[in-house]
Amino acid sequence: MYRTHNNGELHAADINKEVTLSGWVQKTRDKGFMVWVDLRDRYGITQLIFDEERTPKDVMDRCSKLGREFVIQVTGTVIERVSKNPNMPTGDVEILVSKLTILNESLTPPFTIEDETDGGEDLRMKYRYLDIRRNPVRENLIFRHKVAIEVRNYLSNQGFIEVETPYLIKSTPEGARDFVVPSRMNEGQFYALPQSPQTFKQLLMVGGLDKYFQIVKCFRDEDLRADRQPEFTQIDCEMAFVEQEDILNAFEGLTRHLLKEINGVEISEFPRMTYDEAMAKYGNDKPDIRFGMEFGELNEVAQHKDFGVFNQAELVVGIAVPGGNAFTRKEIDKLIDWVKRPQVGALGMVYSRCNDDGTFKSSVDKFFDQDDLAKWAEITGAKSGDLVCVLSGDKNKVRAQLSALRMHLAEQLGLRKNDEFAPLWVIDFPLLEWDEETERYHAMHHPFTSPKPGQLELLDTNPGEVKANAYDLVLNGNEIGGGSIRIHDKKTQSLMFDYLGFTPEEAKAQFGFLMDAFQYGAPPHGGLAFGLDRLVSILGGQETIRDFIAFPKNNSGRDVMIDAPAPIDEKQLEELHLRVELNK
Amino acid sequence: MYRTHNNGELHAADINKEVTLSGWVQKTRDKGFMVWVDLRDRYGITQLIFDEERTPKDVMDRCSKLGREFVIQVTGTVIERVSKNPNMPTGDVEILVSKLTILNESLTPPFTIEDETDGGEDLRMKYRYLDIRRNPVRENLIFRHKVAIEVRNYLSNQGFIEVETPYLIKSTPEGARDFVVPSRMNEGQFYALPQSPQTFKQLLMVGGLDKYFQIVKCFRDEDLRADRQPEFTQIDCEMAFVEQEDILNAFEGLTRHLLKEINGVEISEFPRMTYDEAMAKYGNDKPDIRFGMEFGELNEVAQHKDFGVFNQAELVVGIAVPGGNAFTRKEIDKLIDWVKRPQVGALGMVYSRCNDDGTFKSSVDKFFDQDDLAKWAEITGAKSGDLVCVLSGDKNKVRAQLSALRMHLAEQLGLRKNDEFAPLWVIDFPLLEWDEETERYHAMHHPFTSPKPGQLELLDTNPGEVKANAYDLVLNGNEIGGGSIRIHDKKTQSLMFDYLGFTPEEAKAQFGFLMDAFQYGAPPHGGLAFGLDRLVSILGGQETIRDFIAFPKNNSGRDVMIDAPAPIDEKQLEELHLRVELNK
Repeated sequence: MYRTHNNGELHAADINKEVTLSGWVQKTRDKGFMVWVDLRDRYGITQLIFDEERTPKDVMDRCSKLGREFVIQVTGTVIERVSKNPNMPTGDVEILVSKLTILNESLTPPFTIEDETDGGEDLRMKYRYLDIRRNPVRENLIFRHKVAIEVRNYLSNQGFIEVETPYLIKSTPEGARDFVVPSRMNEGQFYALPQSPQTFKQLLMVGGLDKYFQIVKCFRDEDLRADRQPEFTQIDCEMAFVEQEDILNAFEGLTRHLLKEINGVEISEFPRMTYDEAMAKYGNDKPDIRFGMEFGELNEVAQHKDFGVFNQAELVVGIAVPGGNAFTRKEIDKLIDWVKRPQVGALGMVYSRCNDDGTFKSSVDKFFDQDDLAKWAEITGAKSGDLVCVLSGDKNKVRAQLSALRMHLAEQLGLRKNDEFAPLWVIDFPLLEWDEETERYHAMHHPFTSPKPGQLELLDTNPGEVKANAYDLVLNGNEIGGGSIRIHDKKTQSLMFDYLGFTPEEAKAQFGFLMDAFQYGAPPHGGLAFGLDRLVSILGGQETIRDFIAFPKNNSGRDVMIDAPAPIDEKQLEELHLRVELNK
Repeated sequence: MYRTHNNGELHAADINKEVTLSGWVQKTRDKGFMVWVDLRDRYGITQLIFDEERTPKDVMDRCSKLGREFVIQVTGTVIERVSKNPNMPTGDVEILVSKLTILNESLTPPFTIEDETDGGEDLRMKYRYLDIRRNPVRENLIFRHKVAIEVRNYLSNQGFIEVETPYLIKSTPEGARDFVVPSRMNEGQFYALPQSPQTFKQLLMVGGLDKYFQIVKCFRDEDLRADRQPEFTQIDCEMAFVEQEDILNAFEGLTRHLLKEINGVEISEFPRMTYDEAMAKYGNDKPDIRFGMEFGELNEVAQHKDFGVFNQAELVVGIAVPGGNAFTRKEIDKLIDWVKRPQVGALGMVYSRCNDDGTFKSSVDKFFDQDDLAKWAEITGAKSGDLVCVLSGDKNKVRAQLSALRMHLAEQLGLRKNDEFAPLWVIDFPLLEWDEETERYHAMHHPFTSPKPGQLELLDTNPGEVKANAYDLVLNGNEIGGGSIRIHDKKTQSLMFDYLGFTPEEAKAQFGFLMDAFQYGAPPHGGLAFGLDRLVSILGGQETIRDFIAFPKNNSGRDVMIDAPAPIDEKQLEELHLRVELNK
């Protein structure tokens, strides 16, 4: 037996007990005649004391050889500390060691195993197993486990059944790129790894399972943007005999439960906002509503003056920056430079200072008088001391730009508080979105999403206007979940595939099994999937999902610790009937 | 809202309530003036009544169109049934329908949606979504969910953390064949799908996580024997600072908990048996100990007579078949034919009838007298009325043959009872096993398993005799879990790789990260993995894992429902820098 206790549980009540502990050497302080060692494990730190007078000589000798991260086992007596440490759960006691075994030695680790480490990102990823020894990383993994088990128990108690759907499925060119898996037993054929269990969960509804969930890995072979992973985890859910309202209520319940159990936060309401409203008010389909700064549309009051920039714009729109009049000219110039960066892409920014005396001072005083500027302030909700920032241009572009500026400023002003939670349903998403590249409409959510009742007819005349029974759950400016009511009859599904450019043969080859299933009594159904990585990181008050994944991949999709992917044996390729043909 | 209640919850107490129900038409009985419909959902069946006198005419008309598996919604009043059905939870009531909506029609399903269906295996797999509507399949999936959530909560309460390890890892030629995943972003390189998260869970122990578990999909590209799946699910566990005894206790606890919570069975003890003992007593490393029929070795009493077959044999070994003297000559001949089948491979079988009067009648009376046969009975434990069956030959082969016969007879005699549970630890497995094909020793468990203390030296002189810190948990003749104490120092691990025929370069390329990790303070650790599919099917009193998997694959690794694997687009292949080269 390696231990009688862990390193986080000994207290004053244990004084005089003989105990055996195991763990890692966090640090040693050697005064010659007396040595203190901090012994660490997952549960905490316990101080060991080795003392020339009371400790056997051989133990003293071995003790002097201990280095950082050595793995040791000690036996000793719990004694009261002379100088107690009230900041440590075990700070009242220390162990007077009588027996010491070195279980394993350690090279000097490449970075310090401390909350604030000296190791850079790359080094920490290569030695992830050492990074995980650090409290913040370990705590994140434990936090993730807690969230997952809360999710499972909550949904299970609500009658949801977790069903494992297959990982080796079929590739479909629709949507993002699949990872494929060559089949050795079926020559020249491939499985694909699921981008989500979408069709399977729908089939489970056809199968009468009524309420399904699964915490499940999903895979997308996309070029990785920052903080995207080729494999990611979803809380995947589906319900039968439901309307949108039933689903919103069910998952409001889950989210409310998590915020309460995990964060101790009671949420009174989950506001609902249409996609159109979110775009108009926040320029964004996942607005952070923890702070105001809502958009004010200024076309009526800012156009038809002599300012050509505004007159030619489809949309003139502003926000009030609280306390922004305090910005120096230099700070405002920096903001202007910021919105002009290619990542944001604005051509410039107009501003109006709201002075304490009720007057205004704008960057376009030549074209707008005090009355005009007063209207800007009124429409954007600016008060004395604020700054009105105005962008103009093509509606969709300028909304995205102003949204970026709004988030940037909120970050800068400390308005995005980690311990404040503001969930929001965004509903009535468009069914289709225009793809510039292929010059075609694509399904915004996926081809199984149902249009709002009576809107199917609009497909031919005004496809961009068709609204879907689709919804996203937004938390603090992040989409944490999204879903829809599905199509459940073959006719509508065929029509949708047809509209999305599938030939009947393609639709049959790829989704024939689903359309067949719809012919045998498919119930109305719908669902939702949460991104677990994102959800956990937001509940944890952070925004980097990588910090909540045990073994993440880097931006090239590589695991730098195990060095994967890697070439494989010629023999393996042969068995798979494959040849690699590298680009020259 | 599609329903106020489900179809399993209405009772006499609900009489006179107006309710709305949704579900599938299980069957209709049409008496012309009166129609009864059984409405089914996941939760049960409720009887609907349509009655010329009390039901609106338009509803009556629509009702006449209903076919099996139509999806409908009804509103009506709960009334008392004239003829109650005490076998149905809802059997006291029926619904007098006032409103009927057909939510979806159904073609006639290709097999009946009933407990005993007329659909064959192939048809049921192709239309698995309909198969899942049948009670036995649905109940199995719900049962699996219950087992999984019990496992998670039990382990979590014991301080285990569920950590998700990656699915896109690195291929290693050791062990079974990997499924590989070509990387588009890393040209000519491949990920592999994990055969188990073995190295990652060991790294989590190096990382100080102390107690890990994960219910996780694993993948093996093996030629599929009956009831094997290319993707399967493990309950994967690992603990640090443990000896074998700690692990056995921990997972005895889990198994005890499951048997109690799921099956209502209290297990008093988990016997332990060495591998050598299991092989000698049962010819099998996963013996079913619910019934006796232990092997009796007869070399001493059966050799050195004039019976050449026995004299030339390495082992003569028999079992007593309880009540087997009742077998007719024809039945015994059938048994002899059975052991001579190529799948078993015995050359013949000798038997001795134990008559009620204490005499014996054997098939080799020419060579053995009554005293000899009495010793056979004594050694095999045969009593009057039993039959002693004796096989002989090469030790390993004859043990396997007699084990097969033992299981066959137990099945035939009804000794393998579904509701009786007899767990058993088999311990002290050999470290290595001889592979006839490659004429080399291979790791019996895997190359990370530690040898028993002090046995490492035997590797050079008597490798087959080296015992490992490896153990299997056996339940009712099935291995439900297996694991080992791992090597945790670089030197031993290198030695092991060396012994298993890895060059230092190969060891470094494939497992360098693990050996590096061992240099930075790896704690002693060990673990175990349960096969969830198998565990669930045994707890469920069945032996076919496919019945507990929502969407299983067939013996060629195909999903016949979605028709996967399948060829992929030329464009996809190009992006992956691959060409398919089929065998001519």
